[in-house]
Amino acid sequence: MTYCVAALLQEGMVFASDTRTNAGVDHVSSFCKMRVYQRHGDRVVVVLSAGNLATTQAMVHLLDNQSWSDTQTPTIWNALSMFDVAQRIGDALRSIQHRDGNYLNQHSIDYGASFLVGGQIGGENCRLFNIYPQGNFIEATPDTLYFQIGEVKYGKPILDRVLTWQTSLVDAAKCTLISFDSTVRSNISVGLPIDMAVYRRNALELPEPRRIGEQDPYYAMLHQGWGQGLRRVFGEMPDPDWF
Amino acid sequence: MTYCVAALLQEGMVFASDTRTNAGVDHVSSFCKMRVYQRHGDRVVVVLSAGNLATTQAMVHLLDNQSWSDTQTPTIWNALSMFDVAQRIGDALRSIQHRDGNYLNQHSIDYGASFLVGGQIGGENCRLFNIYPQGNFIEATPDTLYFQIGEVKYGKPILDRVLTWQTSLVDAAKCTLISFDSTVRSNISVGLPIDMAVYRRNALELPEPRRIGEQDPYYAMLHQGWGQGLRRVFGEMPDPDWF
Repeated sequence: MTYCVAALLQEGMVFASDTRTNAGVDHVSSFCKMRVYQRHGDRVVVVLSAGNLATTQAMVHLLDNQSWSDTQTPTIWNALSMFDVAQRIGDALRSIQHRDGNYLNQHSIDYGASFLVGGQIGGENCRLFNIYPQGNFIEATPDTLYFQIGEVKYGKPILDRVLTWQTSLVDAAKCTLISFDSTVRSNISVGLPIDMAVYRRNALELPEPRRIGEQDPYYAMLHQGWGQGLRRVFGEMPDPDWF
Repeated sequence: MTYCVAALLQEGMVFASDTRTNAGVDHVSSFCKMRVYQRHGDRVVVVLSAGNLATTQAMVHLLDNQSWSDTQTPTIWNALSMFDVAQRIGDALRSIQHRDGNYLNQHSIDYGASFLVGGQIGGENCRLFNIYPQGNFIEATPDTLYFQIGEVKYGKPILDRVLTWQTSLVDAAKCTLISFDSTVRSNISVGLPIDMAVYRRNALELPEPRRIGEQDPYYAMLHQGWGQGLRRVFGEMPDPDWF
């Protein structure tokens, strides 16, 4: 499985993905699920992926090989808006599935994949899209400002409690790491390290994503402090008086 | 959907179930998913159910109509151990599915159901079982001391952090309610009121389960206090220093 989160906030965007891939419990490997495509001052596009690894790697291969000097083909480099980017990724997903689908269906293999695609192009606003395995997609708004893909449920309660449009990037990054910590703790198919990218609105430049492993001092502190904090709050709650 | 939790602890057992049932978003109704079968001083059996409502109601009908004066048929009243009870419920589930399965398969209807069955019989220890839709089952131990069925993921992190074999019944009840609160908040298919039963080891008598709705003062306090406590702990965690 996989766990990816992306949030759209007043100050910008936060992206995070784990790196564990598994086919059953035998084939557990580590793969980066975050790709960044940027041209400073022009566009920043971040792509997070979940699902069948062959499908998501085919997509990465396809996007990596799009050239910004190619003006003939529709690419993420000549897209005029983030909506166009989402549509082009959805189209690419469909073409990959069209190529492989028949062969995989014969063996009942789930070749679905989903993507979170966010960023900013030129004078357009920051935008964030959730691309479904069928290639269609939805967009985040200030009302529904974060998306998750993969193993989404364990880490949802803390996001629901903390994230709002006004949440700062720093707080959103902290909240996202806690959401990952809860997920990693309760589900063996999601694992460290985590890749995290924080984009400040209108920067049109993304600082190098940070890779956060178990040895990362901040993550270790958060992991321990959050667990202790939860148990402290738990202890402070009055007991039920009805037995 | 549904959410049920049962935990086996040194002091006894805690059972809780929500009451929301839905087929799609149109047919949302309220049904009790907890059944108690007890004969004071002899046995206490608590059954929590999740899955297809027709299947679980057929099971309840079947169990409700077992008579303790019937010594010929294998029932939950003449079972010599909780293992026997689990096996008899598994057998009953298989017979219900045998009766209905062919008709429901024709319409691709999922008629699966699962059950948490716990309690104590005579001089035997407290025991807790998780009965799968296929009628086979596993038993809780001090290492794996709680089971969930239904919409299990949202509420798992807090159980993982708090529950141990030594956790008191009061704390386990509190923790279970917080687990429900997280689930209800993040998933619309799980809803109040909650039915909760707390069994003290060797009592061979179960106090009336408590029905906990939104107006319940303790639940309202817990709901608010836990959310505030989480946000306070969140605020106390240092910010990441790397951006």
